[in-house]
Amino acid sequence: MVDKHLSTQFDAELSGISTRVLEMGGLVEAQVAQAVQALGDFSAESADEVLAREGRVNSMEIEIDRDLSTIIARRQPTARDLRLLIAISKSIANLERVGDEAARIARTVQRLVASGVSSRMRVPMSDLAFEAELATGQLRKALDAFARLDVERALDVLKHDDEIDKEFDGLLRKLITYMMEDPRTISSSIDLVFVAKAIERVGDHAKNLAEVVIYVVKGQDVRHNTPEAVETMVR
Amino acid sequence: MVDKHLSTQFDAELSGISTRVLEMGGLVEAQVAQAVQALGDFSAESADEVLAREGRVNSMEIEIDRDLSTIIARRQPTARDLRLLIAISKSIANLERVGDEAARIARTVQRLVASGVSSRMRVPMSDLAFEAELATGQLRKALDAFARLDVERALDVLKHDDEIDKEFDGLLRKLITYMMEDPRTISSSIDLVFVAKAIERVGDHAKNLAEVVIYVVKGQDVRHNTPEAVETMVR
Repeated sequence: MVDKHLSTQFDAELSGISTRVLEMGGLVEAQVAQAVQALGDFSAESADEVLAREGRVNSMEIEIDRDLSTIIARRQPTARDLRLLIAISKSIANLERVGDEAARIARTVQRLVASGVSSRMRVPMSDLAFEAELATGQLRKALDAFARLDVERALDVLKHDDEIDKEFDGLLRKLITYMMEDPRTISSSIDLVFVAKAIERVGDHAKNLAEVVIYVVKGQDVRHNTPEAVETMVR
Repeated sequence: MVDKHLSTQFDAELSGISTRVLEMGGLVEAQVAQAVQALGDFSAESADEVLAREGRVNSMEIEIDRDLSTIIARRQPTARDLRLLIAISKSIANLERVGDEAARIARTVQRLVASGVSSRMRVPMSDLAFEAELATGQLRKALDAFARLDVERALDVLKHDDEIDKEFDGLLRKLITYMMEDPRTISSSIDLVFVAKAIERVGDHAKNLAEVVIYVVKGQDVRHNTPEAVETMVR
């Protein structure tokens, strides 16, 4: 009965933490979307808002990590629960990195607006918006897989990662063409290359998160494998 | 006596793992140095060697992580030991990322050599080599801080991080000048921008590692603070 009681309390703590991880995930997803939108609008105000929320993302990581340590120290969890707790710590590190990418994009927007270059810039906005949609979609799917501990959904994330990479390659080629056509745009176009790269990395973080989900459920470390190999490993 | 015995065995396991973390650190540091050298020599063979060793880096991370889980599950470590074990897991994730950056640089070298563009390229090699020296120096210092659990050395890493950022900014400006002077070099110069960025990120990973060391020794999560603020926090 005591055991039952303790375990229920542990479950409640775990589920409380999971909820906050999902909340953090929703926040960083919104940060990326708003940062990319701020670029489309050349809105320094919107970029400022993203940066004003960066501290919140960072604190969430630190707070969740602290609570995880407390739970581990107090509960002496089983091997399986411990795997989950460590996985959560890795997940929020990934989410914090997504927040960093959003902040990077926002700072670029601020700089472009401040330099006055934005009015003369050619921005392949529909491509960037599409890349961002793919990346935040992957992130949402990975968070969903995390919430349900759903291996199939996690696999789905791994399978679609190369779409973002292809989109990035296309964007890079387009930006190089812009630069060659008008070398005066080189400096600002390179800023856009970094924006495209930041979005691509959001996709990478989603993939890492999906790998963590598979590790928690299956106990298998599937990093550094092709999606096909991972599929074989987990079935 | 049994406790003593167990604890000694635990210490031996811990120290075994620490040795392997340092070994992994030495390996990824060498990977970065060789990848940058391969660029200077335009040597596809040297780049191939870096990529051939990437699998070794990845396996080291997976193996050390597996052993950490085993230790935690078997030993029910104290809160302080647990903090160390989780910190080790975060450290090797950072080191694996350093290995990724080296692989990225090596793949760029392969592509540049294969495209035949290398013979016509202007490479600010002494700047890149200098940036790489700063970054691997920071990494070495962070690993040293990890080996001795030395907060002062870790602080020193945090204080010097902005030197690499400045070096990167200078390199970026130089590369933009090259591109403007000869727009035909835009595509290959952007490859070099990514190389410079990869080296800068090695410095970031060294900084993360230093923050982990401070966390282990002081129990304080000092991420997202200025070096000056961290210094005040730990003293």
